[in-house]
Amino acid sequence: MKAPPWKWFIEYTHPSQAHMHAVEDYLYSGKTEYQTVEIIDTEFYGRCLILDGKIQSAEYDEYIYHEALIQPAMTMHPAPRNVMVVGGGEGAVLREILRHPTVEHVLMVDIDREVVELCKKYLPEWSQGAFEHPKVSVLHQDARAYLENSRENFDVIFIDLPEPVDGGPAYLLFTREFYQIVADRLQADGIIALQAGSYNPRMIECHAAICNTLATTFPIVRSYATFIPSFDVEWGFAVAAKNYDPRQLTPHEIDKRLAERKITALKYYDGETHLSMFSDPKHIRQAISRDRRIIADDRPLLIY
Amino acid sequence: MKAPPWKWFIEYTHPSQAHMHAVEDYLYSGKTEYQTVEIIDTEFYGRCLILDGKIQSAEYDEYIYHEALIQPAMTMHPAPRNVMVVGGGEGAVLREILRHPTVEHVLMVDIDREVVELCKKYLPEWSQGAFEHPKVSVLHQDARAYLENSRENFDVIFIDLPEPVDGGPAYLLFTREFYQIVADRLQADGIIALQAGSYNPRMIECHAAICNTLATTFPIVRSYATFIPSFDVEWGFAVAAKNYDPRQLTPHEIDKRLAERKITALKYYDGETHLSMFSDPKHIRQAISRDRRIIADDRPLLIY
Amino acid sequence: MKAPPWKWFIEYTHPSQAHMHAVEDYLYSGKTEYQTVEIIDTEFYGRCLILDGKIQSAEYDEYIYHEALIQPAMTMHPAPRNVMVVGGGEGAVLREILRHPTVEHVLMVDIDREVVELCKKYLPEWSQGAFEHPKVSVLHQDARAYLENSRENFDVIFIDLPEPVDGGPAYLLFTREFYQIVADRLQADGIIALQAGSYNPRMIECHAAICNTLATTFPIVRSYATFIPSFDVEWGFAVAAKNYDPRQLTPHEIDKRLAERKITALKYYDGETHLSMFSDPKHIRQAISRDRRIIADDRPLLIY
Amino acid sequence: MKAPPWKWFIEYTHPSQAHMHAVEDYLYSGKTEYQTVEIIDTEFYGRCLILDGKIQSAEYDEYIYHEALIQPAMTMHPAPRNVMVVGGGEGAVLREILRHPTVEHVLMVDIDREVVELCKKYLPEWSQGAFEHPKVSVLHQDARAYLENSRENFDVIFIDLPEPVDGGPAYLLFTREFYQIVADRLQADGIIALQAGSYNPRMIECHAAICNTLATTFPIVRSYATFIPSFDVEWGFAVAAKNYDPRQLTPHEIDKRLAERKITALKYYDGETHLSMFSDPKHIRQAISRDRRIIADDRPLLIY
Repeated sequence: MKAPPWKWFIEYTHPSQAHMHAVEDYLYSGKTEYQTVEIIDTEFYGRCLILDGKIQSAEYDEYIYHEALIQPAMTMHPAPRNVMVVGGGEGAVLREILRHPTVEHVLMVDIDREVVELCKKYLPEWSQGAFEHPKVSVLHQDARAYLENSRENFDVIFIDLPEPVDGGPAYLLFTREFYQIVADRLQADGIIALQAGSYNPRMIECHAAICNTLATTFPIVRSYATFIPSFDVEWGFAVAAKNYDPRQLTPHEIDKRLAERKITALKYYDGETHLSMFSDPKHIRQAISRDRRIIADDRPLLIY
Repeated sequence: MKAPPWKWFIEYTHPSQAHMHAVEDYLYSGKTEYQTVEIIDTEFYGRCLILDGKIQSAEYDEYIYHEALIQPAMTMHPAPRNVMVVGGGEGAVLREILRHPTVEHVLMVDIDREVVELCKKYLPEWSQGAFEHPKVSVLHQDARAYLENSRENFDVIFIDLPEPVDGGPAYLLFTREFYQIVADRLQADGIIALQAGSYNPRMIECHAAICNTLATTFPIVRSYATFIPSFDVEWGFAVAAKNYDPRQLTPHEIDKRLAERKITALKYYDGETHLSMFSDPKHIRQAISRDRRIIADDRPLLIY
Repeated sequence: MKAPPWKWFIEYTHPSQAHMHAVEDYLYSGKTEYQTVEIIDTEFYGRCLILDGKIQSAEYDEYIYHEALIQPAMTMHPAPRNVMVVGGGEGAVLREILRHPTVEHVLMVDIDREVVELCKKYLPEWSQGAFEHPKVSVLHQDARAYLENSRENFDVIFIDLPEPVDGGPAYLLFTREFYQIVADRLQADGIIALQAGSYNPRMIECHAAICNTLATTFPIVRSYATFIPSFDVEWGFAVAAKNYDPRQLTPHEIDKRLAERKITALKYYDGETHLSMFSDPKHIRQAISRDRRIIADDRPLLIY
Repeated sequence: MKAPPWKWFIEYTHPSQAHMHAVEDYLYSGKTEYQTVEIIDTEFYGRCLILDGKIQSAEYDEYIYHEALIQPAMTMHPAPRNVMVVGGGEGAVLREILRHPTVEHVLMVDIDREVVELCKKYLPEWSQGAFEHPKVSVLHQDARAYLENSRENFDVIFIDLPEPVDGGPAYLLFTREFYQIVADRLQADGIIALQAGSYNPRMIECHAAICNTLATTFPIVRSYATFIPSFDVEWGFAVAAKNYDPRQLTPHEIDKRLAERKITALKYYDGETHLSMFSDPKHIRQAISRDRRIIADDRPLLIY
């Protein structure tokens, strides 16, 4: 009788809850200036990037996460030209943004150069060469400081950060003050979209707080979500905008825009997918609307 | 420093994948004639019923599972009077069916009397007295044999069975032959709805096979799904009908029907929830449509 | 392919170390006034008693633990008549003491009446009727208070307590002050023996501290140990005496005494076993002798 | 609150038993021609070598394993000159053998060159330069074939192999036929010593079978054991000889020989340690003597 696998990645989401993934191979394991990094090959979901003990994306389903993060905002905007990414280390966000032919420039600001270099080396299928694309610039510095000192205006800004764990690099990029800085750098019809925490109703306070906090700055804030298999959970995102509303876009209009832009290679996103992402069950809508917490620099959000 | 919990329920979904739930209390642990049963209190999701090592429902989110299984079909039907349940041990399906005032009779046929008795004793909040409701009859016998010998006709038949594991009681209730027997006992405008396996795209073959198999008998077959936190996965259901199509029902019409029937206590289901359940991301639609497997008595489906 | 077991007892001995035991059945799970109690059937070691998350004894190998605790001291003493047990809930210590025909009376003082009742009900093979033996008395009160107020003198006193965990009932029964109280209640040639913590050299500080603390009161203190399979570790004991030394007893003399006392049913203990228990590898001897800690009421010992 | 470690090595010893070690770092993970290899840093026991999912040795306590394997046989022999090692990849066996000044030559035959190279690179503290010692030769070939074709005679032969798992390289080096080949290459007063499986009485059949099999060839066969913390179990060894008996050596004589040979740096082994290793509890002696199995080429032994 064959013994069970002996190498496991156990992702604890709570002291009493965990997900176990058998590991085929540990490709990299180290600490950067900002976070611990592991790159592993799992038997079930292929290669995975893990930061501070949490799966960021997996070979098998990173297209779900990255299309979900990028495509709604890009499609909502009638002609996104100047796009910024805060974080986004794997480079798959660049790949998704570059599908839109109106894009003239993408600036990625990710503080952790080492993670980006590791992703280029170990996860080249994520970025598919996007880091070398002539429309792309990458800076390794604090995105908040960069935005405070910039005078540039963007059509869309994506925020693709790991969850704000204690001691991690990201917690000051989830606050009211940061969102105001972002809003100041958007065009008058600008949009931001971000990964926004677990949609598990038992732990949705984090997502709800992010949405409440966005609403201190943006007139339109919409939650959306999709199930990410390698996360073992439905994951939340948020889009916030000055005047476009993703819930006004019909599936038909989305499919039409994608066709006009000649975007045919998407595996996850289309008009019906958009509808599925932006429709929430009743208990989720209620849970989000019940929450009142505002995240601020002096009252930051920290995840288990 | 406090030591971690020491009692764990580890649900393996694959040799290389598992979910860990810390257990506060083991209330019951035994074997019936048909399956092993555990009733546990978990720290995170409260009381859970486990059959053959798989969570069937949890106190915290059983309303999601049971409303998702029952309410779409009940609402689709303009006036469900005679309803049958195959399986459904916890009794929460009865609770959901009885919300509809047109219902005159519900027959539940669950082969495992012992499980039903355990649910009455340990999970009374699930059934909320439904087992004693005057409109309800419960039989403990093989549902397939019952239906083969019956001449009754039903408006809606629900199939709420554990997954077909090797040695378990349910595998002959997932086949083409069984679905034909069910169809023969439905009214001309009858509907069936069933739990239909994981919606994780990495394991969706089971769901796809169930839908393919239903399509050998029913002209309309619709997949739908929702995230069940205690399952750590998006879970699939299917509705199959002779002439009603759940995708034709607008959110507005659903909310109107629920209001007309004075159904106000639902926590999960309403018009927008219906929309979210019946909209699938592109990769799911493709995965389901790619699969061709038909389940038959002599080629049954068995789950890990 | 058969799925792995789903019920597990995971005994953490350190934040980075744990032992996993698959559970067949949870027989009892509750909290007494003093501690949490589980009685489980494991696939590998049979029935187990677990207090505050730590295995106390297992059906498969309790004879090792209990003979190791009781038989050296009983055999060292030329004619033990009056014996006391502090703790000892399962009753197996009584069974072992009663093998010696010179015994006239055994007093067991275990504060937790509920644990003793549970052991009588679920672990009758441990005590084999000893609780009802005419030579045995059982009191349920604080053993320290009892000894302080007593004028009785004992030939041998056994201390069979769970490890001193934070919030547990036992931590004031591991201190210098307590050992002095015990010594005062021993005859001039009296002996005490106790379970004394893990012998894993990586965690032997607890055992060493117990021995150092005993040495503040007793002229002769001897560590000994044996491997307990269900503990997954070599476990330490200590014997302390006013004038007998277990290392002076030859295997031959031990076998002779056991024969004279007509003790033939032991599965673990005999002369060669005694030798194996009281011989330590060099690194263990050095680790124990390096440690200087004394446990006192105001500097108690607490285990992870 | 700090989340638990997320990288774990889980060593299953049975479908229902496992040991969990938190991993700090994965240094190497790969497959050689013969076996899978992992080199990890654990939080508790430091660096570990893992072959086919089983810990071979750990930084914290490899001295216990390697002194236990090597020193009894080397000390028993009055003047070991020509020594052979079958297996022994880490090189710590060489280090231990070279402590004895009479040694003129050590030949190590380990089939897996890659493992040896990995050990040199990642575990240099194990061999402490022994691979480069002028008295040492290393061959990478099948040890059985080597011995069959050799005419050399050895004073001591050590067999330091991983357990015989299905598909692993070692199973034909645990048989009656192999032991006869070894015996033929020993001097008239030669000795062999080997690691010989778990001493857990619940799984001692493997050890007992090895001893029974040795006894088909050697007049003197002695089991011995010591607790290895990183194995979470007492581990068995065996020594077999043509005329020397380790149980005849007194602790005093052992300490005298070590002193004469000016061996002062041992951390584990000395006279009392020898006594502790070669004294077994009664249930172990009985379990070993009960077993009758002989391992042969056509009835090999395979471990879970």
